[in-house]
Amino acid sequence: MRLTQQQADQYHEQGFLLLDSLLAPQEVETLRAAFERDARVPGPQVVTEDGGTEVRAVYSSHQRQPEYAGLIRDPRLLEPVRQLLTEDVYVYQFKINAKPAFGGDKWAWHQDYLAWRLADGLPAPRQVNIGVFLDDVNEFNGPVIFLPGSHRHGLVHDGRSAAARSEQHLDPDDISLSPRQLAEHVDRHGMTSPKGPAGSVVLFSPEIVHGSSPNMSPYARRLLIVTYNDTANLPRPTGEPRPDHVVCRDTEPLRPLAAPFSRTLSGVSA
Amino acid sequence: MRLTQQQADQYHEQGFLLLDSLLAPQEVETLRAAFERDARVPGPQVVTEDGGTEVRAVYSSHQRQPEYAGLIRDPRLLEPVRQLLTEDVYVYQFKINAKPAFGGDKWAWHQDYLAWRLADGLPAPRQVNIGVFLDDVNEFNGPVIFLPGSHRHGLVHDGRSAAARSEQHLDPDDISLSPRQLAEHVDRHGMTSPKGPAGSVVLFSPEIVHGSSPNMSPYARRLLIVTYNDTANLPRPTGEPRPDHVVCRDTEPLRPLAAPFSRTLSGVSA
Repeated sequence: MRLTQQQADQYHEQGFLLLDSLLAPQEVETLRAAFERDARVPGPQVVTEDGGTEVRAVYSSHQRQPEYAGLIRDPRLLEPVRQLLTEDVYVYQFKINAKPAFGGDKWAWHQDYLAWRLADGLPAPRQVNIGVFLDDVNEFNGPVIFLPGSHRHGLVHDGRSAAARSEQHLDPDDISLSPRQLAEHVDRHGMTSPKGPAGSVVLFSPEIVHGSSPNMSPYARRLLIVTYNDTANLPRPTGEPRPDHVVCRDTEPLRPLAAPFSRTLSGVSA
Repeated sequence: MRLTQQQADQYHEQGFLLLDSLLAPQEVETLRAAFERDARVPGPQVVTEDGGTEVRAVYSSHQRQPEYAGLIRDPRLLEPVRQLLTEDVYVYQFKINAKPAFGGDKWAWHQDYLAWRLADGLPAPRQVNIGVFLDDVNEFNGPVIFLPGSHRHGLVHDGRSAAARSEQHLDPDDISLSPRQLAEHVDRHGMTSPKGPAGSVVLFSPEIVHGSSPNMSPYARRLLIVTYNDTANLPRPTGEPRPDHVVCRDTEPLRPLAAPFSRTLSGVSA
């Protein structure tokens, strides 16, 4: 699947692109079932809420579940990424966030690439993020909020003070915009949050300024985020690298499947 | 100003009614200036953020500022209230909340009337709330979220345990709905949040279930709320009454001005 020129232009100009209902409802069911299965696999890749057992995030499910191994190679995801970035990409990070009811992490306004440069020594912002809605996303259940076009000005701040403090640990305050910086960017760019039914997909730039509203609804809201990176842009950590469930080590270029992932699965029950 | 039959029906069925841009931009300017002036009057009616100086709320400004003394009698506000409730109403509570940038109190899902019954011994839910937008309200700066129609089922819980603990102090947890209760009500009623330009007005029931999103924007968002009560429904506190800036003592029935408040002001600079 290729993006139209208009879609590609919109991604480059706005820093994000929403593809409404890209996946079919049955595919979403398949992915949800795989998430439930994967969330029961013990290991450091499962993040639970503070002091609780509720799963808040699972990393690197594409390394364990065939549905997700297929999804990252699905032509509907991988071909647009190759079109926007380069032919040779791999999955740098894969995570599913289950933003819990009545809250959810308040992750401050930030640019992803700053975090990855600080934590992993990622040389350049040569990534495309793909968010896959595993639940309907509306204004009440914690949508991601973008400042459209904010990716076109590079990093707002360079996080040098944070880097000086620690090579490994990343505090949200180290990478978040100050109130004054955010006000300037909101004045210039405004705010918008892509919403849509489960199965919708949003592509977004590693440099776009974004934040995340809390989930005011009584239901968890699951969002899958795959970050593809250029294979010519491998991380160069200066200290101990982050764990391989957070920063994937398999940097072989991905080749698109010939068909949607759901048609390539066999013997896997949804 | 009378509401149309359709508007009155909507209030009774949904539990709220939005009147878009009811006040003129110049009137909003006048009210904002009066708020800035009133926020500098020292006293317990000014609530600042924890350990800071930023004003988060001011109570009972209608007792000090002629603009607000006029506004509560403005026919555009008072006549709809009398139409919906009864001829004889007074102001039970008057407050202006300045929800600060990047947050704001996370006030749990609740029904106003439960709080007032517990804290003030208010006999019946014979009130109408009027919210006046002093700033544009959008999905990002902390709009109030309503469960439409949820006011038609009485109180979801009676807060008896809270009343047993304390006659005076109200903890949000004492009056908030449980996750299970909220889920049931969201399934039945859905969620909606009235938005609009500054000068818009929303009337809402004291029994409607509502919550408040945090303010994700870099600017404070000011909301004025006037609660009118039936003069035949005066509070009957069993202990020490709450302070008079929180629960107003002047219960004389209000009579509507002949003209908008802004035309009755003289010698007051905006």
